[in-house]
Amino acid sequence: MATTDLTALTATAAAAEIARGTLSAEDYARACLDRIAAVEDEVRAFAHLDPEHALAQARALDRRRSEGLPIGPLHGVPVAIKDIFDTADYPTECGSPILAGRRPHDDAAVVAKLRAAGAVIIGKAVTTEFAYFHPNKTRNPHDVERTPGGSSSGSAAAVAAGMAPLALGSQTNGSVIRPAAFCGVLAIKPTHGLISRAGVLMLSRVLDHVGAFARSVEDLALLLDVIAGYDPADPDTRPYACPAFRAAAAEEPPLPPSFALVRTPVWDKADAEAKAALEALAKELGAREIDLPPYYADAWQAQRAIMAADMASNLGVFVDKGGETSQALRDILAEGRKVTAVEYHAAVRDARRYAESLSEIFEQHADAIITLSARGVAPVGHASTGDPAFCTLWTLTGLPAMNLPILEDAQGLPIGVQIVGAPGRDERLLRTAQSLLAARSKKAPRRKRAKA
Amino acid sequence: MATTDLTALTATAAAAEIARGTLSAEDYARACLDRIAAVEDEVRAFAHLDPEHALAQARALDRRRSEGLPIGPLHGVPVAIKDIFDTADYPTECGSPILAGRRPHDDAAVVAKLRAAGAVIIGKAVTTEFAYFHPNKTRNPHDVERTPGGSSSGSAAAVAAGMAPLALGSQTNGSVIRPAAFCGVLAIKPTHGLISRAGVLMLSRVLDHVGAFARSVEDLALLLDVIAGYDPADPDTRPYACPAFRAAAAEEPPLPPSFALVRTPVWDKADAEAKAALEALAKELGAREIDLPPYYADAWQAQRAIMAADMASNLGVFVDKGGETSQALRDILAEGRKVTAVEYHAAVRDARRYAESLSEIFEQHADAIITLSARGVAPVGHASTGDPAFCTLWTLTGLPAMNLPILEDAQGLPIGVQIVGAPGRDERLLRTAQSLLAARSKKAPRRKRAKA
Repeated sequence: MATTDLTALTATAAAAEIARGTLSAEDYARACLDRIAAVEDEVRAFAHLDPEHALAQARALDRRRSEGLPIGPLHGVPVAIKDIFDTADYPTECGSPILAGRRPHDDAAVVAKLRAAGAVIIGKAVTTEFAYFHPNKTRNPHDVERTPGGSSSGSAAAVAAGMAPLALGSQTNGSVIRPAAFCGVLAIKPTHGLISRAGVLMLSRVLDHVGAFARSVEDLALLLDVIAGYDPADPDTRPYACPAFRAAAAEEPPLPPSFALVRTPVWDKADAEAKAALEALAKELGAREIDLPPYYADAWQAQRAIMAADMASNLGVFVDKGGETSQALRDILAEGRKVTAVEYHAAVRDARRYAESLSEIFEQHADAIITLSARGVAPVGHASTGDPAFCTLWTLTGLPAMNLPILEDAQGLPIGVQIVGAPGRDERLLRTAQSLLAARSKKAPRRKRAKA
Repeated sequence: MATTDLTALTATAAAAEIARGTLSAEDYARACLDRIAAVEDEVRAFAHLDPEHALAQARALDRRRSEGLPIGPLHGVPVAIKDIFDTADYPTECGSPILAGRRPHDDAAVVAKLRAAGAVIIGKAVTTEFAYFHPNKTRNPHDVERTPGGSSSGSAAAVAAGMAPLALGSQTNGSVIRPAAFCGVLAIKPTHGLISRAGVLMLSRVLDHVGAFARSVEDLALLLDVIAGYDPADPDTRPYACPAFRAAAAEEPPLPPSFALVRTPVWDKADAEAKAALEALAKELGAREIDLPPYYADAWQAQRAIMAADMASNLGVFVDKGGETSQALRDILAEGRKVTAVEYHAAVRDARRYAESLSEIFEQHADAIITLSARGVAPVGHASTGDPAFCTLWTLTGLPAMNLPILEDAQGLPIGVQIVGAPGRDERLLRTAQSLLAARSKKAPRRKRAKA
């Protein structure tokens, strides 16, 4: 197999080849590193990269396999890790000069799980400053003049550019789904509490989610099988068994999945082209249109109050010490310090009410909500990472959400489709995504034939 | 057995007689009701009482037993319930005229558990206004000129006066341990999250605890066996198995329990007589003296910030609607509305730190902390329910605490001894209490003989 082809493999396919012995972890890591070497100057996806260390991990994994030792489900698969996840072998600087050179003692809980599953931690992916809005160096692989989105900028760009088949990110507002949409990759922001955040920079216990990027649904499921589950160090994870994500995602649904088109109160912010494309898709899928009651318009303010107050609690120390920070960060912390505990509690209570009332959609009307992941394609320029508004409601309510890169504009730039599932039913959302992608890939050639 | 003797029975003894058939639930309930009729004018422990309804419950229980149907561990045992616990068959007014005549649809989770275990819900015990400071009508059975303490005023007084062998209360600051101390009964405020608060008026999710009153350690253990445990409706309960409290409390400890005398930063507030009595007891027990570091002095402010902010969130609606409220309530809500989310989060974080640092005492030095339950004996007058300061730290940290009525002043009024255990080891604290009481009852006669 030529090195140049290897970066096109899915993680699932590569892991299978490595397990069979038809591909070495070293060759696969080298292919990813070659790809990084070729495009990193343009894309700038990595905050910390150490090719020799990555190759050493891969060679150690090859030795384990050759010695007949047990191998994990991600044996030899490179994973890029957002630079707010602690890693014992790379710096973890959270995109801020204040933390320059910081070396954690331990891996974050999910990084440790990845290592135990045989993953190669290929490098630390660029994050915006403290995973908030102030942009960092990454550029969109589809068009370097455009933002990759944020805050998980490097994770989305790395997967989109073939630098790694898998990446970890995090979302407190729209930091996984938005960059995935702009970079045209699959991503999941699972149900709140599905994945441990121990060892990950905390912005907000209520809003923070670990999320993942990949180029296939199966790869996302494979990754969730490794990283999901109870961790006493994260009080929002629950001591219940996890579903078998990969098995569930591969199942044929008993009926074709049903969808509810939910435009949300921010619909007017979307570009005309994106709105039209999503509405056409919803029609094609037979989606039922559901309008949310007017009080949903307040959800964005509730998310803002919680995020600002929690960031002020968790990051205030960095600003107080007078380190180098952006105006955007100082502004949100100043805003957060004005939020009263009563306002905060009311916002958290509202979040729970929104979640409960959205549950009715899944109980009565549809398997998944379908909506946009962002206003449209990635905006031109690097002064901002774009508007997270299309993700806010699903983050606030903790519902599982995915980005599917299945629409594009006239120039071929990706427009993200967001599907949102019932809380705690992440495996069903993956199955729904798989089934939607399969239906479209069947339909597309048929349509072409009809035109010909 | 003469009716007049029955109210002296412990719940454990009465339940055993009823199970054996040597006592009927009806006779036992009638004995308690007779006692209530005799002393209620003086003590005023009940907010809602319906003797016919209580007797009807007892008769139904007797029928069950006579029909050979299964009976629970509290079959025929009367329990008084603080009037902030919802009950489907009595009003639940939370000590406020705003809720006059309120009839909940459902029982609180623990009330339902009591019923399922065969308890007779004998009436609703008086609470201060919304379980906060403003006193209600109850008077101390030892001296009606004195306060019974609060907020679980009626629960403590009912058990002390022989009106019921068991009562439920709640504690957000010092509302179980303090009235137990003033009324001279045993009580436990278990580890935070041990007992579900679903269906109980919420002041503060962080601070609220369900607690229990009885006249023996065994009775408290019997009650915990029924009401402790996981409830998905209370997110602070955990889905783990509970210890067998009664069995554990009855065990002989492998070594005599060791104690740490912790005076806490509020020690100077205590009466000289109470301090001297507690110090003499600590000496007798060979307790090691442990001084808390100076930063513990801030714990009282942290508890206040959390309580005020949470009460403003949870009870603000009552004041806003302009109903009849006390100045004390309006003041704490006004104070709570000024607490910022950042201050609130910092207080919650501090609470966790205090709890962690206290854990060292149990790991390294002692089975239990010994300290005072209150400043001293119940104060004269009914304008206040006394100072909760001696309970604040143990409520803030969620540690299990008990009141033991084993000291008294020169007039014979009870001085409460508070023992505090390691978090989640409530069954060990009960065993420690049992062993301490047994040692004292052995010693007391010996001392008398020595004097004679």
